[in-house]
Amino acid sequence: MGEEEREEALDYESIQEERTDKLTALLDGRDMKQLQRCMEEMNEFDVAEFLTGIEDNRMPMVFRLLSKETAADVFANLEAPEQERIINSITDSELAGIVEELFVDDAVDMMEELPANVVKRVMRTATPETRNLINQYLHYPENSAGSIMTSEFVDLKKYMSVKESFARIRRIGEDKETIYVCFVISSHRKLEGIVTVKDLLLADDDDVIEELMDRNVIFATTTEDQESVSEKFSDYDLIALPVVDKEGRLVGIVTVDDIIDVMEQEATEDFERMAGMTPSDKPYSRTGPIEMWKNRIPWLMFLMLSATFTSMILTSFEERLAVVAGLIPFIPMLMGTGGNSGAQSATAVIRSLSLGDTEPKDALRVLWKEWRTAALCGLSLAAVNFFKMLLLDGMLLGNPNITVAVSATVSLSIVFIVMFAKLVGSLLPIGAEKIGLDPAVMANPLISTLTDAVSLLIYIFIAKLILNI
Amino acid sequence: MGEEEREEALDYESIQEERTDKLTALLDGRDMKQLQRCMEEMNEFDVAEFLTGIEDNRMPMVFRLLSKETAADVFANLEAPEQERIINSITDSELAGIVEELFVDDAVDMMEELPANVVKRVMRTATPETRNLINQYLHYPENSAGSIMTSEFVDLKKYMSVKESFARIRRIGEDKETIYVCFVISSHRKLEGIVTVKDLLLADDDDVIEELMDRNVIFATTTEDQESVSEKFSDYDLIALPVVDKEGRLVGIVTVDDIIDVMEQEATEDFERMAGMTPSDKPYSRTGPIEMWKNRIPWLMFLMLSATFTSMILTSFEERLAVVAGLIPFIPMLMGTGGNSGAQSATAVIRSLSLGDTEPKDALRVLWKEWRTAALCGLSLAAVNFFKMLLLDGMLLGNPNITVAVSATVSLSIVFIVMFAKLVGSLLPIGAEKIGLDPAVMANPLISTLTDAVSLLIYIFIAKLILNI
Repeated sequence: MGEEEREEALDYESIQEERTDKLTALLDGRDMKQLQRCMEEMNEFDVAEFLTGIEDNRMPMVFRLLSKETAADVFANLEAPEQERIINSITDSELAGIVEELFVDDAVDMMEELPANVVKRVMRTATPETRNLINQYLHYPENSAGSIMTSEFVDLKKYMSVKESFARIRRIGEDKETIYVCFVISSHRKLEGIVTVKDLLLADDDDVIEELMDRNVIFATTTEDQESVSEKFSDYDLIALPVVDKEGRLVGIVTVDDIIDVMEQEATEDFERMAGMTPSDKPYSRTGPIEMWKNRIPWLMFLMLSATFTSMILTSFEERLAVVAGLIPFIPMLMGTGGNSGAQSATAVIRSLSLGDTEPKDALRVLWKEWRTAALCGLSLAAVNFFKMLLLDGMLLGNPNITVAVSATVSLSIVFIVMFAKLVGSLLPIGAEKIGLDPAVMANPLISTLTDAVSLLIYIFIAKLILNI
Repeated sequence: MGEEEREEALDYESIQEERTDKLTALLDGRDMKQLQRCMEEMNEFDVAEFLTGIEDNRMPMVFRLLSKETAADVFANLEAPEQERIINSITDSELAGIVEELFVDDAVDMMEELPANVVKRVMRTATPETRNLINQYLHYPENSAGSIMTSEFVDLKKYMSVKESFARIRRIGEDKETIYVCFVISSHRKLEGIVTVKDLLLADDDDVIEELMDRNVIFATTTEDQESVSEKFSDYDLIALPVVDKEGRLVGIVTVDDIIDVMEQEATEDFERMAGMTPSDKPYSRTGPIEMWKNRIPWLMFLMLSATFTSMILTSFEERLAVVAGLIPFIPMLMGTGGNSGAQSATAVIRSLSLGDTEPKDALRVLWKEWRTAALCGLSLAAVNFFKMLLLDGMLLGNPNITVAVSATVSLSIVFIVMFAKLVGSLLPIGAEKIGLDPAVMANPLISTLTDAVSLLIYIFIAKLILNI
């Protein structure tokens, strides 16, 4: 902002584009000095984006123009393939410099994605302290608070004065992931309270931390699931959360920027599970067809084989259904309506469970609400279908098989199918949560396979009643 | 932490439960003084949870025990029904006190949810300045940066020294939503740069803001969609983002805690759209059956009516399909497999689009990847199905209609159905994004209705080829 050329472009995207064009021109004109200066002024995420956009082998060379501090920040913002390309083209001492500058959580993220030989080289160049820290972090369970925390926080003692605390923050704050929340620990590293820089700024120089700190600390334990950690950020509007071990000792902190990534990842996993896929950490753009096949085939196979039941039912009753012409063509519509109704309820309940809005103990309340909704949906669909079949299929399209009795059979089936589908769709996820499974696996694909078979049975039963087949 | 009884309970949830029990005991024993003291020490979210848990009419009375500042913070954490109960049982001057203490964005959120008569009373008790501000914010488009921003930020001038800046932060910082990022504006309120408290702490007292501030500001415009705002937080790891009007003047800021709510809301909307529901702002637990029916019936109705095509196809070919016994019972399995395959691709692509990982210009790359994945999935499903039909349906279940030719017909259909479903499932969301629609509406329900009809046509075509029906 402020520069003249930018006065016109008043959204951030246009500014970004202009800048990328400028950088590309500098690179193509080999004006490395100017390129370096521009990159140092930019946000590290934008530099990372620019580097990723350079598709030829000039990329690592451009990366090496960056100063040591900027290099580490930019590096943390790159994806694994670019990180690997850079690691493979810098010297051991340059690599060591970057690894020491990285926050532990970023270093651990990187280690989890890079191929084994690259990890080995990184570990070899790191100092023994960093190596130990990384190793320790790699041992926390996947998706636990321990696996996403970082060790770069400001710790204070309760007997310190505000003045002393500021001096400490100034001394060690530069390399910390946040300085705005400081953690008060005992001589045995037990977490005793937290104090924010706001508290410190609004206090007097001589005030003592013990009087300022909030003892009522919200915290997580190292093995706690990241989903529960992110709920705490959402509930309490935190910018950092302390993580303690079994003995209550402070071992790390989680910052809000990491939680934003966790939330995206958890939502993506739910989307994938609900569509019958094995969740994967890799973004879609970097997943190859073989891997996608591996993630997708198990559920497809299982669901295809489960459909054997539906085939068996249809095989047994095919002849009887065929007695009244016009019944079989409505089977797909009935199954589709059942599947869609069930998916709606399942999705609503799964999302509500995952946001903590509904709990397994609410099962009866959910059931009663879904039952009434299902009745409303079933009846309105049935009414519309009854007249649609008589008027459109029967009169307009001239299908002689569509009698009032056939229309009534199909319409009445809709009512019961929708009610069954909505009840199953809402109960299965709650049941899964109750027995400790992820409710998201009880979504769409499973429910529609189940409702397919039951829809068919309901249809046959009602056809027997009304049409005497 | 620190108190003796808590030494044993070392996760935050147990501490919360203990505290709730204690508060309930105090309330039942009418020890209001002690209850008041306990609540003042607690986090405002926990107090709000405790209040929500009091189901009888003592709730507003307990709320009135809170001090003015705490009351506003707790109020902002309550849901609309509880807010309404409180508003209806406090005096106008108490209400005015709360409204003045609320951050504008929280006040606006509240106004959007409360019934009209309550809103009127709130507006009447507010000061003219607050009333104007709320009115102005209520006019920004729904889900825009303007509608989620707040006006409580710290502004500095570039000629200020670090010492003067700290003095200003100390003076006005108390009521700001964040003090850690300060915004440097010109005399015409144009945004010129940002400076963090960290920058200020690490600088000397005499340094001037102009030299410290970052001119390369990441910002949003008032009408920008909240999804794009939240992408900026995720990309740049921000804790606050300035919002400017068309002239580049700073009008508000968005803080990271609001973005966490936005992310939850956007993900919920995608889940709902993808299951064929109209997104609603209300949580599931507070949505009644009539409203749920309204959100769910449009797609159910549309999809049921679209299934008319499938019925028409089946009506036309029923007799010919029936010529070779054993074909009709496999229709549901084929449609299910098509629907599931399409839903997988659609979900993966929609999620990738919404995370900014895939863009419409990647359409060809996506298509090529999905095509190869579909070939792998289709072939493996077909192979398993071929032997399963011959061995299980044919030999074990003794169905005499299952010949090698019938098995081959069904299996070959699977290959083409899966390939069609995966291509449609990946292309429709990209196409929607390209023409400016929400890709999430192109999900599961729509795709399965489309694949149902096409699956049937593929099946009939292949049966003609192989079985000469």
